[in-house]
Amino acid sequence: MVNTSAVSPLAPANFPSLPAIGGVKFATIAAGVKYQGRTDVMLATLAPGTVVAGAFTRSATRAAPVRDCQEKLGRTSDAGAAILVNSGNANAFTGKNGTASVNAITDAVAQACDIPQERVFTSSTGVIGEPLPHDRITACLGTLCKNTLAGGIADAAKAIMTTDTFPKGAKAEIEIDGKTISIAGIAKGSGMIAPDMATMLVYIFTDAKIEQDALQTLVSAHNEQTFNCITVDSDTSTSDSLIVAATGASGVTVDGHEGFGAALRNVMQDLAHQVVRDGEGATKFVEITVTGAASDADAKVHGLSIANSPLVKTAVAGQDPNWGRIVMAVGKSGAAADRDRLSIRFGDVEVAKDGWRSEDYSEEAAAAHMKNENIQIGVDIGIGSGKATVWTCDLTHGYITINADYRS
Amino acid sequence: MVNTSAVSPLAPANFPSLPAIGGVKFATIAAGVKYQGRTDVMLATLAPGTVVAGAFTRSATRAAPVRDCQEKLGRTSDAGAAILVNSGNANAFTGKNGTASVNAITDAVAQACDIPQERVFTSSTGVIGEPLPHDRITACLGTLCKNTLAGGIADAAKAIMTTDTFPKGAKAEIEIDGKTISIAGIAKGSGMIAPDMATMLVYIFTDAKIEQDALQTLVSAHNEQTFNCITVDSDTSTSDSLIVAATGASGVTVDGHEGFGAALRNVMQDLAHQVVRDGEGATKFVEITVTGAASDADAKVHGLSIANSPLVKTAVAGQDPNWGRIVMAVGKSGAAADRDRLSIRFGDVEVAKDGWRSEDYSEEAAAAHMKNENIQIGVDIGIGSGKATVWTCDLTHGYITINADYRS
Repeated sequence: MVNTSAVSPLAPANFPSLPAIGGVKFATIAAGVKYQGRTDVMLATLAPGTVVAGAFTRSATRAAPVRDCQEKLGRTSDAGAAILVNSGNANAFTGKNGTASVNAITDAVAQACDIPQERVFTSSTGVIGEPLPHDRITACLGTLCKNTLAGGIADAAKAIMTTDTFPKGAKAEIEIDGKTISIAGIAKGSGMIAPDMATMLVYIFTDAKIEQDALQTLVSAHNEQTFNCITVDSDTSTSDSLIVAATGASGVTVDGHEGFGAALRNVMQDLAHQVVRDGEGATKFVEITVTGAASDADAKVHGLSIANSPLVKTAVAGQDPNWGRIVMAVGKSGAAADRDRLSIRFGDVEVAKDGWRSEDYSEEAAAAHMKNENIQIGVDIGIGSGKATVWTCDLTHGYITINADYRS
Repeated sequence: MVNTSAVSPLAPANFPSLPAIGGVKFATIAAGVKYQGRTDVMLATLAPGTVVAGAFTRSATRAAPVRDCQEKLGRTSDAGAAILVNSGNANAFTGKNGTASVNAITDAVAQACDIPQERVFTSSTGVIGEPLPHDRITACLGTLCKNTLAGGIADAAKAIMTTDTFPKGAKAEIEIDGKTISIAGIAKGSGMIAPDMATMLVYIFTDAKIEQDALQTLVSAHNEQTFNCITVDSDTSTSDSLIVAATGASGVTVDGHEGFGAALRNVMQDLAHQVVRDGEGATKFVEITVTGAASDADAKVHGLSIANSPLVKTAVAGQDPNWGRIVMAVGKSGAAADRDRLSIRFGDVEVAKDGWRSEDYSEEAAAAHMKNENIQIGVDIGIGSGKATVWTCDLTHGYITINADYRS
């Protein structure tokens, strides 16, 4: 039997020491939405003029809070803003009641924190199809608003956890014109995605000054290469949300600054990797790099086909350099490929070249790489210059145990 | 630990008693391609004038025998024909050597059986990326050709097995104009599809008289609703092959005869279900019926999204009526859906209606259905009249054990 309550073997050693971001304060509380004996609601208040950008699940059955955030995003305002997140209940597939709950919560935050309702963003994560007992949340708002702290981000990372085995945080600090710009982010997610109790939620804060459309452009582009390049089990949540808030408190304008874009991307990629490292039952972190495809888009299709293949993922779990399954996954992806130009590497070990087992192929060397905790799979399609990198974990007995035994 | 050598709990009680088909003879032999102590090559000879149709994997990395069959199919001839199949080695991802092996085998069959080489069809199933030791097969052809028997189909079903836990056969007999038309088919497959040792191969024989294009039209149409509507693990083989041969020995012409089409479809569906019932690690047979979609094609996309979802499949394994995961799978499929019109049933139990948990929902009744060996999931999208039915099995510890521990 797998111990499913233990911390993932792929977890970082510590939660990082995250910088306080000027203009952002956090509070958490145990509202008893579903869990007992732990915090389950976090509030982040954002200074007047904060710019907010984001990205959300493309699911056709996405939850009420996601739709509400999508409607509100892109509006600019000089007013303050807030993000409220609860764990324990996803408020998904809850029909008109779901929308009513979002309205009740955003109205209560607006009243308690003196922020316009159209600047209040919410996320909910947990069981789906159950009405959200939003009264338990609104009852806490007076207390939450009174107790916000600049240094509360680590507690916030814990309050949004569901089946996560560790809280996830990442940061970056860059110098621009002699001033320091800080970025701090938190995430939750443990399947990509179990809609019951594991949705991916990400909140990133910075004191940089940036226009809304410039921030949104950065977030959308980086999202495609970070959060949209990870997969644990190919399943897509009804609630996935990424929100990036720039308070401008540093006074430094970063529009078009490459260093800021790179730093933001690093934080996003770091958090994305941590979600994979907390993948349900994961024992291996797998980086798949595809080169030589007809286009970057084709390379990503091949990469995700490999990353989502149960046969590839079980081979990784079994420490088996089973490159035949990589051939299969490339073949089924639907993107262009030529069997006789395909080359495959595990780490530095070339196992196949130009559609044929490598002449100096060493099963022993390939098997040695598969014993690592971090696995690199390199695939060259051999027909163009398109490339992409995606990340996943292995598929183990732990995944079955968590998901076959969870609700019953 | 799961006993992976036992016969699937979903296996039929017996291999059916299949009728001899006029104009078809079988022989099998232990050629030692890879396995020891069992038959691994089967030869079927087909009378002069036999019409051959088929369907094959769409993989871009499909194997040499598949490409050879695809080139030969569709040509008509008054000459005899033959099908030769080996297990133990898939002759896939073997480059020019793969094509050379196919040529050596088809030439040897042609010589030994006095059949034109362009009428010899072959399939190979087993390990991929290893050169096929075709000399071991060609060395047996004299013996094979001499020993063909009209009644040898049950032995043929055994010779083509790899990780299958039971041989698969199905039949139909219909009366047309006072004469009996017989159909008999065999299949192998235990994952959909593990390219190492589990590919789906299907051979169906009938004494009906039919034009090649009419037979191909029937086979293609039925294939879309039978073999292309099953999934074990979403992985697609490099070798999947379906070949249907009509000898005409009955003297009865069936072009356009609805009863023949229906009988052929029944045999195909029966064999397709048996492949799912031998799905790696399967303990439940799952039928997913989607109605109310924008089109039949959309209904199939929704159905396969549900059938391929690891979270749905693990919920079935855990006997958990977890309808939230169905909502998730519909939402992520990419086909049109409206969250607030979705209805879901487990067996006769309505669990969700119009985007909301059913008013009279009984978790107990839904859970009771999930304890069955055969599970029915009904999903009404609520926006059109498109419909489709697909079949799958659950995802269990047995699947992980078989695939994580197989090669190493």
